[in-house]
Formats: sequence, structure tokens, C-alpha cells
Amino acid sequence: MAFPYKKMDEADFDYIRSVTASDRVMVGSQIAQEYYHDEMPNYGTFPPELYVEVENKEEISKIMAYCNEKNIPVVVRGAGTGLSGGASCKYGGIMMSVMRMNKIFDIDFKNMTISAEPGALLCDVQAAAAAAGLLYPSDPGEKTASIGGNVITNAGGMRVVRYGNTRENVRCVEAVLPDGSVEAFSSNVVKNTTGYNLKDLIVGSEGTLCIVTKVTLKLVPAPKFSNTLVMPFHSLEECADMVPVVLGLACQPAAIEFLERELIEIVERCLKKPFPVKEGEAVLIVMYDASSQDELDAAVQMAAEAALAHGAIDCCIANTPERIGSVWGVRGAILEGMKADSVSQEECDVVVPRSCIAQYVKDAKRIARSLGLRVEPCGHCGDGNIHTEMLRGNDMTDEEWENATTECLKQLYALSKQLGGQLSGEHGIGNGRIEYLEDFVGPRMIRLYKAIKLAFDENLILNPGKIIEFNK
Amino acid sequence: MAFPYKKMDEADFDYIRSVTASDRVMVGSQIAQEYYHDEMPNYGTFPPELYVEVENKEEISKIMAYCNEKNIPVVVRGAGTGLSGGASCKYGGIMMSVMRMNKIFDIDFKNMTISAEPGALLCDVQAAAAAAGLLYPSDPGEKTASIGGNVITNAGGMRVVRYGNTRENVRCVEAVLPDGSVEAFSSNVVKNTTGYNLKDLIVGSEGTLCIVTKVTLKLVPAPKFSNTLVMPFHSLEECADMVPVVLGLACQPAAIEFLERELIEIVERCLKKPFPVKEGEAVLIVMYDASSQDELDAAVQMAAEAALAHGAIDCCIANTPERIGSVWGVRGAILEGMKADSVSQEECDVVVPRSCIAQYVKDAKRIARSLGLRVEPCGHCGDGNIHTEMLRGNDMTDEEWENATTECLKQLYALSKQLGGQLSGEHGIGNGRIEYLEDFVGPRMIRLYKAIKLAFDENLILNPGKIIEFNK
Repeated sequence: MAFPYKKMDEADFDYIRSVTASDRVMVGSQIAQEYYHDEMPNYGTFPPELYVEVENKEEISKIMAYCNEKNIPVVVRGAGTGLSGGASCKYGGIMMSVMRMNKIFDIDFKNMTISAEPGALLCDVQAAAAAAGLLYPSDPGEKTASIGGNVITNAGGMRVVRYGNTRENVRCVEAVLPDGSVEAFSSNVVKNTTGYNLKDLIVGSEGTLCIVTKVTLKLVPAPKFSNTLVMPFHSLEECADMVPVVLGLACQPAAIEFLERELIEIVERCLKKPFPVKEGEAVLIVMYDASSQDELDAAVQMAAEAALAHGAIDCCIANTPERIGSVWGVRGAILEGMKADSVSQEECDVVVPRSCIAQYVKDAKRIARSLGLRVEPCGHCGDGNIHTEMLRGNDMTDEEWENATTECLKQLYALSKQLGGQLSGEHGIGNGRIEYLEDFVGPRMIRLYKAIKLAFDENLILNPGKIIEFNK
Repeated sequence: MAFPYKKMDEADFDYIRSVTASDRVMVGSQIAQEYYHDEMPNYGTFPPELYVEVENKEEISKIMAYCNEKNIPVVVRGAGTGLSGGASCKYGGIMMSVMRMNKIFDIDFKNMTISAEPGALLCDVQAAAAAAGLLYPSDPGEKTASIGGNVITNAGGMRVVRYGNTRENVRCVEAVLPDGSVEAFSSNVVKNTTGYNLKDLIVGSEGTLCIVTKVTLKLVPAPKFSNTLVMPFHSLEECADMVPVVLGLACQPAAIEFLERELIEIVERCLKKPFPVKEGEAVLIVMYDASSQDELDAAVQMAAEAALAHGAIDCCIANTPERIGSVWGVRGAILEGMKADSVSQEECDVVVPRSCIAQYVKDAKRIARSLGLRVEPCGHCGDGNIHTEMLRGNDMTDEEWENATTECLKQLYALSKQLGGQLSGEHGIGNGRIEYLEDFVGPRMIRLYKAIKLAFDENLILNPGKIIEFNK
């Protein structure tokens, strides 16, 4: 076992410099504090002993072989936009940035794929596809995330309803194993039953099993026509019950989101962004992509009729860029609105069966109220991933806030489990949710996770203490 | 390590009877010979020591806990339609049939899913979905396969182009681990980043990691309109080059298959099934599903124009049940035709990037010719999974046939690898392809596969000697 890890010394620093370049290596206090954490500093802020910007897989391979022998932990960092405390040096060691490895390769039109190095930004990959009239369908909210980060966390987003998670859009991955070996996991093929399916295990493994050095992603023809419907309902239940109705229609939506009036009002009040639909306690927002105007019109008509038949007060069609912008502008500003409306926030990323959304939201509010907290559940109604933001009141002490959020999270996770849901829908476990995982999945599953981790990383040198913790 | 396994004795037989029922247990020569192998007896025919038909997960759990302690191997059998020699007792022990566990649960309309026990037949699951106006989109050729078998082998089929492999249609799995624990892998949710993604590792693990006791499958609205286009081309190259063109159109096809004229003539000659299109050395068959007649018409028009612009001699629309039947009837009768046209056959299930289909087919024929064999590549052009059937000539001795097929497979696998393909696209490794796996994936990957196997099954009692072999 790996504990305690080797404390890095000058000889180690020199070795890393020798296989990379001095001007790409920083040590100790030279390391910028932003590299101590990801976008959630409260999920873990730890100083690395050494920070290195690698340029290719050969450098990564040499570093890993060395660290595997010397017992030095390595954490990989992309754009640092993670929301689980995953990219942080919990046990010191090396913080390895792959952001210089940002090449996007030419589109392979015959295979409808695009390949990229892990440090390429999601927005740049999307733009490269769009420039060729194609769509990279994964669309997580954070467009400046690295594509490697998207892959290693199986990033979600709004379009999962139609196009799947990042995992479903990854054809193959090239990665360096903790011992320095470089291996290809699957290839640019659509089907594969050759040995164990490790590609889909690596996607979403949060940097604990291997280091991704190249990804090949699926593209689809870009939809040429798009539209957004806003369906206001008198109650959340009616709004949530509309989701399976929409999904049962012949035309599949690209995204289904929901907003409660309370949340819309926060955004309107705090950010001065007006929402175009004034009625309804809860609104369902449905986006359709289509290949022709006829197909789009048919989808919209079908959905509008279904909405009115299922209790919608109205069905408003946002079909100009301005109107579409005003709907999605409010949806996209939720987090900012909540930040403006409270002194701090804690987030919960559960996913529940789509059939349980209304019940989850009602119970989540009840739980929060009983603990003196305000929560604003919102998000991906089409896939059941309900971000449940807890808002801190002005009058709460640090200790009250800490205790209330910890207890609230415990109860929300228990609620999700009881409803057949999961602890995290798209943000992952990392360091921030690790204390809740064993209660959720049980001791036998934790034992299995540990065995899987050891199968890849027998010396526990890659992102130790994330997802699972051996050192206790 | 497990070798040698315990030879089962009367006490073992009695224990299995005590936790199941005497009339569901057979031993030694009572066991029907069909349970010695799957649909490919030449990939492994081995007598079990005991055959048991289990009725629930509690029985499975007790059997596994016992066998794990006593060092007795267990192999699970569904409908026995596998094509890799997977469901066979290579090291003796227990053959466990799950075919009595065939319950199909009520459709969950709100979540658009259906759950079933592993012994339910694919055709019955498809029928249950269809009766509710829904579609279970996975559609492997063998409709009397068990759904558990489909899941554990990640079965493919023709509709992978649009709807993905079986894996993409599995929401969650309940399974018994080799130590008898019963665990749920994910739940009825659309997104999940809670711990390692073991669900997608289990799907396709060929019965070597755990025993599936219940599956929950994704359903989609049933397409109401369907159509088939037949595009004849002067050459295979033009035919294969049409595939990315079709996939680049706005409407996504449900299936894309190809047939060479030689193969059509075999079916016409041997089975008296006429193919409706008489021109062209190679034909592309494209199926469209649509939610309205307008959408279908638009797809067909777009595809027909594209075909004629890319060298198709014609574009024939099969839009009556009879014409559609005559096209797919010939496609579906290929294997039967080849069986009627040769004394025996050996199959190869490689998958290559879609961009390499024509090159693969030409090179495969050259390789076979150089070894005195006839091959007929055909199959899933839309996903690059080219079944390459070797046909035995009347004048070949057993030894000549054996040597030629072994050498041909070696060279076809090397060719697939060189083109960026894989060893198996949908049939799996099992026992039949195990000798080719290490050459294909390399020693480091085999070491990783072994570690994964041990993470689930440290005593190697579950379907030993399949995918990977420890005993050498």
C-alpha cells in the first residue's frame, strides 16, 4: 500500500524537469494557488508539491513510471472547472496540467468523428464540429471545460435527453496507465465486444484509473432547425407529469428543463432578466432539434396539443433568437441568481427516476425547511437530474450553516436512494461527496470499487483519495 | 488460485438439491448433451458435472456462496444461442440455467422502461413493448435469445446504427456476485456519476464477472412508418463509400447493410429466394424509421438523390410489406444459404472503422484465396461489423480445413487491427476466440483484464477460461 507517500525532494523535482522542461515545472510556493483546488474550493484545497505542464504522452508516461516506482501521487488537471473537488492534491505530490495538450485533429468525415487531446476546450471542439456542419452533441453547461475533463467525469448537461451523456459520445480513448504504459481503449468503431469494456469504465473514473491523452468523439449531422416551447402549469406535479408525455411523443426533444416560479423571480429580481412567460407556478421548457422546418413544425404542434391536453395553462413557442435567448437566458442564470440572492450555497446533484421528480422536489423542500434552509431545486427534468441548491440565510452562523447543510445533504441522499435515484447525476464523487458514498452504495460495492481501483493502480498513486478512500 | 477445481461429489449434489429442488437438478449422464455447448459446438463442448435450473436470485446467491467456498466453477446458460463458446463448462462444475426466471414486468410508462428476468426471450420483451406502442430498440438477429444473454454479451444486430448496442439500452442490472452478494448496478435513472461505472462493464462481460438476475431496459416510442431502400452499385468501393454519405444526411437510418452479388446469387440458387434488384455488383440496403409519412418521404427522397449523385445505378424503394420482405428475406437467409452451399463454415466477426469497409472486404478475399478458401463478407455496413464467413470446399480434408481457417482467422484479425478495427464486433470472445485475444490487445491489456476479473471473482469460479485464461 501507498501510505505514507514519499515526500518529494530536489532529486524528484530534477527528474521531472529532466523529462519535461524547467520552465514548465513549478515547485512549492511558486505554484499558483488556483492549482490547489477546482471550482469548489470547499471540497478540497491542497497545495501540490510540484506543478508540471506536460506536452505529450511520452512525458506523461515517464512521469508515471517514475512516480509509480517512487510512490509519489499524481493528480491530473484540465481547465479546473470540476464541481466535486476531484482535481486537487489531497496527498500532495504532483499536479499535472494537460492544458498544453490541446490539439484538435481534422474531422474524420467517413467515420463522423473528431479526435482531440485532453486539454482542448469543449467550446473549441464544438466549434470545430460546427464549422464542418456537424454537431458534437454533448453540451455540458461549462463550455470552457477541457474535453479530457468532460470525458473523465462523464459530463452531462441538458442535451442528454436526446444525445446521451458524454460516455455515449466517446468512441475511444488513449490513456497512460499508472505504471506508464500507453494503451488504446477501443478504437474508431461503432461496436466492440473484444474483451472487457474498459473504455466506458474509464469515462467517468475521475482521474483515478489512468490519464487520458487522446479522445475520439462521435459527431452527428447538425440539426438545422431548432425551437423552444415554454409550458406553464398550475403546479409542479402537473409540470413533472408532463415529462413522460413529452418523451412518449413521436418526436424526441433535445432538452427538457423545468423552473419553478420562485426561482424565475429570483433571477428576475436579482439579475433583471425578465422571463417571457408570466403565468404558472412551474414551467416546463422543451427544446426540439429537427432536420427540416416541416419536422420541427410537426414536433411543436404535437407537443403543444399534448401540453394543453395535460393541464398546461398555455404553450408559448419561442421561435425567434430573441425569445429563445430570453428563455434560456433565465435558465442559464439560475446559479448566478442564487449567488446574488444568498451569502453562500451548497449544491446537491442527485438524479432520480423521471417518475419521481415532483415527489423529490416537494420532499426536498420539506427537508430543507425543517433544517432552517432554503433550497431551490431545478434543472434537468428530462433526465431526472435535479440540482438542489441550498441557500444560506444572512443570519446563519458558520457552524449553523455547516451543520444544516451536512444534515440536509444526508437526508436528500437518503431521499434520492429511497426513490430509486443516485447520489450524483453528473458532477461526480471526487473529494466533495466521498463521505456520503458508502452509505449510498453499501460496503460490498465499496469493496468492489476498491478492487477496481487496484486493478488499474495497485500502488494508489493516481488521484488518491477520490471516489474511494483507502487511507482510513 | 482456483486450479485444480474441486471435483463435485454426492455431498455437493445434495447441497444444490437442498437449496433448489431435486427435480430441477441433473447430474452426470442425466444431463442432456445440448447443455455441453452453445450454438457453436466447435468452440467448446464440455460436460457439466451438475445442471440446475434456478428460479430466483436467492437460489443463485446460495449456490454461489457455496461454490465460492468449495472451489466449484459455475457457468450460466440462457437460451444457448451464443456464438462464441461462452456458455460451456470448460472446467466442469455447474451449468446453471436461468431460463425458468423468465418474468417480464409491467412496463414503467413514466420512465419508459421495461424490466425482465434474464430468462425472458428477446422476442417476448420486444412483443411486450410493442403491445404498449413502444419499441425495445435492440434487435439482434436471434430473436429466441434470452434477454440476459443479450445483456451479458452486449448483443448487436442491425439497428445499432440508430439505436446503439444492447449496452446503450440497459438502464440498470441486478446481479449476484461470485461470493453470493446481490447488488444493484445503477438504477432506473438516465444519468449516473455515482462511483465507478460497473453497469457498462458487466454488460458484455460474458458471464465471467457476475450473474444477472434482473435487467431494466430503455424503451422508445415505436416508429409508425418504415421503409427500405436498395441501392445497387457497380463496385463494392462505391457501395461502401455511400455509407458515410447516408449517415451524413439529416435523417438517420435505422439500419445499413450490404450484400455483394455473389452472395445474393448463393441465396437465390440454394434457397430459391429471389432478390428484387438484379443490377449491381454490390447493393446497399438502407432502412428508415419515421414518426410520420412526411418525415419518411423526406428521408427517402434525400437518400435517393444522394445515392444517384454518388454513383448508384438505381435507388429502389421497397414500400410494401412484400417488397420489404423480399429484400430482408434474402439478407436474413445469408447464413442458411452459405450452409446450403458448403459442407462447413467458420466465422469471423471483426468490426472495422466504417471508412475501411471496402478495403477490408477486398483484402479479406485476397487472404482467403491465397489459403484456398472462399469467404463471403457481409453484414452490418452501417457499423463496420463485417461477418466474414469462410466456406469449406468439398475436396478439403479435415486437416486442410482446420489449418486454412486458423491461418485465415489470424490474418483477418491482423488485417482488422491494421485498419484500426477490433477482433469481435458483437459475438464476443468466449472460448472460441480466446487464443487470438492476446495478440490483438497485447500483454499489458491482458494483465489489466485479469486484474478486472479478479476484482469481481477472486477465486475464478465464474465461467472460468472465457475471455481470459489463467490456467496456463
